[in-house]
Amino acid sequence: MKYLTAASRLLRHSSRNLSNRRSNLQLLCSIRPSSSGHSYTSLRSYEKFMQDDCFHRNISAKNSFRGSVVGILNCLAKFQSGGIRTHHRNLASTASIPERNKSFATINSDDISYFNKVLGGRGVVQDEEKLDDANTDWMRKYKGSSKLMLQPRTTQEVSQILDYCNSRCLAVVPQGGNTSLVGGSIPVYDEVIINIGSMNNILSFDKVSGILVCEAGCILENLMSFLDNEGYIMPLDLGAKGSCQIGGNISTNAGGLRLLRYGSLHGSVLGLEVVLANGTVLDMLGTLRKDNTGYDLKHLFIGSEGSLGIVTKVSILTPPKLPSVNLAFLACEDYLSCQKILVEAKTKLGEILSAFEFLDINAMDLVLTQLDGLRDPLPSSKHNFYVLIETTGSMESHDKEKLEAFLAQAIESGLLTDGVVAQDINQASSFWRIREGVPEALLKAGATYKYDLSLPPEKMYNLVEEMRQRLGTAANVVAYGHLGDGNLHLNISTKQYDDNILAKIEPFVYEWTSKQRGSISAEHGIGLMKANKLHYSNSTEVVQVMAAIKKVLDPSGILNPYKVLPTSVLSSQS
Amino acid sequence: MKYLTAASRLLRHSSRNLSNRRSNLQLLCSIRPSSSGHSYTSLRSYEKFMQDDCFHRNISAKNSFRGSVVGILNCLAKFQSGGIRTHHRNLASTASIPERNKSFATINSDDISYFNKVLGGRGVVQDEEKLDDANTDWMRKYKGSSKLMLQPRTTQEVSQILDYCNSRCLAVVPQGGNTSLVGGSIPVYDEVIINIGSMNNILSFDKVSGILVCEAGCILENLMSFLDNEGYIMPLDLGAKGSCQIGGNISTNAGGLRLLRYGSLHGSVLGLEVVLANGTVLDMLGTLRKDNTGYDLKHLFIGSEGSLGIVTKVSILTPPKLPSVNLAFLACEDYLSCQKILVEAKTKLGEILSAFEFLDINAMDLVLTQLDGLRDPLPSSKHNFYVLIETTGSMESHDKEKLEAFLAQAIESGLLTDGVVAQDINQASSFWRIREGVPEALLKAGATYKYDLSLPPEKMYNLVEEMRQRLGTAANVVAYGHLGDGNLHLNISTKQYDDNILAKIEPFVYEWTSKQRGSISAEHGIGLMKANKLHYSNSTEVVQVMAAIKKVLDPSGILNPYKVLPTSVLSSQS
Repeated sequence: MKYLTAASRLLRHSSRNLSNRRSNLQLLCSIRPSSSGHSYTSLRSYEKFMQDDCFHRNISAKNSFRGSVVGILNCLAKFQSGGIRTHHRNLASTASIPERNKSFATINSDDISYFNKVLGGRGVVQDEEKLDDANTDWMRKYKGSSKLMLQPRTTQEVSQILDYCNSRCLAVVPQGGNTSLVGGSIPVYDEVIINIGSMNNILSFDKVSGILVCEAGCILENLMSFLDNEGYIMPLDLGAKGSCQIGGNISTNAGGLRLLRYGSLHGSVLGLEVVLANGTVLDMLGTLRKDNTGYDLKHLFIGSEGSLGIVTKVSILTPPKLPSVNLAFLACEDYLSCQKILVEAKTKLGEILSAFEFLDINAMDLVLTQLDGLRDPLPSSKHNFYVLIETTGSMESHDKEKLEAFLAQAIESGLLTDGVVAQDINQASSFWRIREGVPEALLKAGATYKYDLSLPPEKMYNLVEEMRQRLGTAANVVAYGHLGDGNLHLNISTKQYDDNILAKIEPFVYEWTSKQRGSISAEHGIGLMKANKLHYSNSTEVVQVMAAIKKVLDPSGILNPYKVLPTSVLSSQS
Repeated sequence: MKYLTAASRLLRHSSRNLSNRRSNLQLLCSIRPSSSGHSYTSLRSYEKFMQDDCFHRNISAKNSFRGSVVGILNCLAKFQSGGIRTHHRNLASTASIPERNKSFATINSDDISYFNKVLGGRGVVQDEEKLDDANTDWMRKYKGSSKLMLQPRTTQEVSQILDYCNSRCLAVVPQGGNTSLVGGSIPVYDEVIINIGSMNNILSFDKVSGILVCEAGCILENLMSFLDNEGYIMPLDLGAKGSCQIGGNISTNAGGLRLLRYGSLHGSVLGLEVVLANGTVLDMLGTLRKDNTGYDLKHLFIGSEGSLGIVTKVSILTPPKLPSVNLAFLACEDYLSCQKILVEAKTKLGEILSAFEFLDINAMDLVLTQLDGLRDPLPSSKHNFYVLIETTGSMESHDKEKLEAFLAQAIESGLLTDGVVAQDINQASSFWRIREGVPEALLKAGATYKYDLSLPPEKMYNLVEEMRQRLGTAANVVAYGHLGDGNLHLNISTKQYDDNILAKIEPFVYEWTSKQRGSISAEHGIGLMKANKLHYSNSTEVVQVMAAIKKVLDPSGILNPYKVLPTSVLSSQS
């Protein structure tokens, strides 16, 4: 307890501001997938690859930044399989991939000629190595066999491409940064890849309203840098921000670390420009905070994973950048205390609360065991649960006073057993590194069965305990996530993949989630991975309406086929 | 300027908390339409009606609360036409009502028998007086001729009613508190009224997450009272809260005074239960902050004004109630200063800013001239613009310090010319009464041409100035609204309605708004009033997709016909 008191003292006397903590941290570790809570290449590994031949080969191939990242990952895979341990799971057991839809045509030379004409000879990619990257997902779980990637530069080009593909019945897969964790952004068979990365212009920014308008291919981190200079921030922050694109973020309805404070993209996206399967351009690119003129169609495209249309331009409301950021790393002895602390934080910290994350003792142990250079911020004893609380506000002295008062009361009431407040940016980075290092630690520990669930907060940890009972000593059940949003990242870590263990996990985990009216995908989407599991979180009637809307907007089903909706439901609509 | 200094001193030394200001104010003036910025019956008028015979007659008729309110309004109309001045506009000139759709059946005795059976003999209303209320909109602009109102008590009953109406091709109009300002909640011809007001149970509230689940007929003010006891607030606050129902709020995508802080309903509504035209119940009543499992269909029903389905249950995220509220009434000499003050408030007040409203000198003059008992809070001189800034936070001393610092800098930089900070709840109420009294003052001044527009903030006031140039001395152009949200309430006040004046206003106002990519309905919706004006804020392609979705969900078009979408577009889908 004296540690916490000391930390409060440090907080009181600290003059260093943590506001740039996350951006600096990200510079070190920006090669990450599209959601917090998942693997990224550590700084140490990254440096190793920088010295690796194949990294430079990829760089010298003048790939896009995304291409480089994929290159690094390719190297990582090769490097791991060559030297360190590697774990490749037989994915067929978790995602039964449907057969190729025979109604889709295959690419011929006339098609290539047409696309060359539309794109003026640029951005018609048939190079095998580049296609290899674009055919492979970030997690290296899926691999498509597309023979063609198109890189349009304008909405008009996207429109012409889709109009043509629709008339020829050529299936397409829209691709941004290709950081999907559910196989949402790769071809399943030979779909034409439409990569939006060349549409990366910022079109306007209004300093009065904070409204940004840009093309869909803008990389999230670039938008963050741009806004930083304008005194604003993006309302979302993801681990993959160095690679992921805003169009992909919107198509996935990406969550991330700022959702607790700034809400979902359904609240902050003000307008979209979308190209439908038949090439029709829907101009819904309003820059208005309020607009009640008819059905708000843009919401259909937020989170529909490119299966209803391709997002080409985005208008988004950005919050002002506030100067004061604080971070506390706290310990609780039971899950109920974590919940109570959340309620207290919401009332006592109120308007300055900006993140509320948790990890359990298994997650903490794993990180400290597997990752180098990390130390326990609360070393005097082990605790069952750890909570990270971040505040962001406009006046540092006020925020610190609020945080101190909140912590003092939490200690007095017995909810907290220990804790420390970061006194500088380095300490804050090391705290975040523990929370964000869990996926990397899991990767190092062996095979992982990963689940991204939304559950009622009061029941969330029951699943973890039940899972431990089911699996006994056969696996290490590790829990962490965005407690403030009710989002649990449940990870089951084993030495190697084992279908007997899988059979004990699934469908149990989905059925349990479904019984609690939870979500089997809190922030990652459905993609290819969970298309046939959609019924666990949606009624038959709801799925049928989804399919009917797909049929209206994409009658031939050319947009991102085999994803999001179960193939059986789509067939029944024909 | 000394006034402001004095006010700051008052602020510093005031110990009275304003947190209950709005709720108390609302108790006095709760009979208001569905958006801030519109007429309500003043306390004085209300008291007069309390002594009026016909008010008591309506009360004694054991109407619902809503019924009583309409009763009061009926009395108001009669009272006004008998004694005080009254202004009835020939509405045919602004809303060309389409012919009755001949494909719709008319009610017969078998239908009545069926509905009596479904509803167990209760809630099948054929009484003329009750129907008269339900046929008439709040503004008394429209009057339908429905012969039947149904008052279901369960989702199952709504489903059975709709299934039957769909099979018989009986058109229906869903109705909540009937406070629509655009004729969205009344029958146009003989549609069956389905009033949801009897479905008014709170189903659950989670004190950890702040998630409320309730039936759609819950009156907004009742939900606010319930949450107040739980330490939470509703994320929306409207003038009509004493009458309007949460299902209607959601179907209108109601805006209001808290949108600046808590965002739109697209961000805070977590789940809905909706009954489709054919009786299918869509259970999307999730209570999860994050859920990315397929298309997020609930957004289609937020703001579609009951034309795609009837909302029967609601799950909504509610913010914690914060204890400190402050209100400043400020003066600026030009519109540019108002804009600059907004930017400053967003950065300096940051997380505690909860409202930013403005009114111009014409609005201020009108209020002070027309309404009794109000005095100018800044009496030393007249100013061109007035701004109300409200803060809401978790610690009073911090909020006051921030507000003082912000005001001091705004004065020093010359953006503010005068100002006062409310020192107690009475003063705060009197400040809000000025802003909220504008519509009532307009009503008293004569005829009003009302426009509810979203415009880019930097261009918003140009329209007001251009309108003044066009109209000269023929009319008083009055401007006020939610500047923080870019929402202008433009009102053109004349002695009486005159089609020559109207011709100078329309279509100019819509064309001007359209050129700026503004919205012709920021928060009121389209309803009957603007269905044929939808193209001013939406492209042909977008409207066609809206119509296609309407066709999928309501193939016979029985749900709220003649509203939202232009009849011509719907016909072309057949």
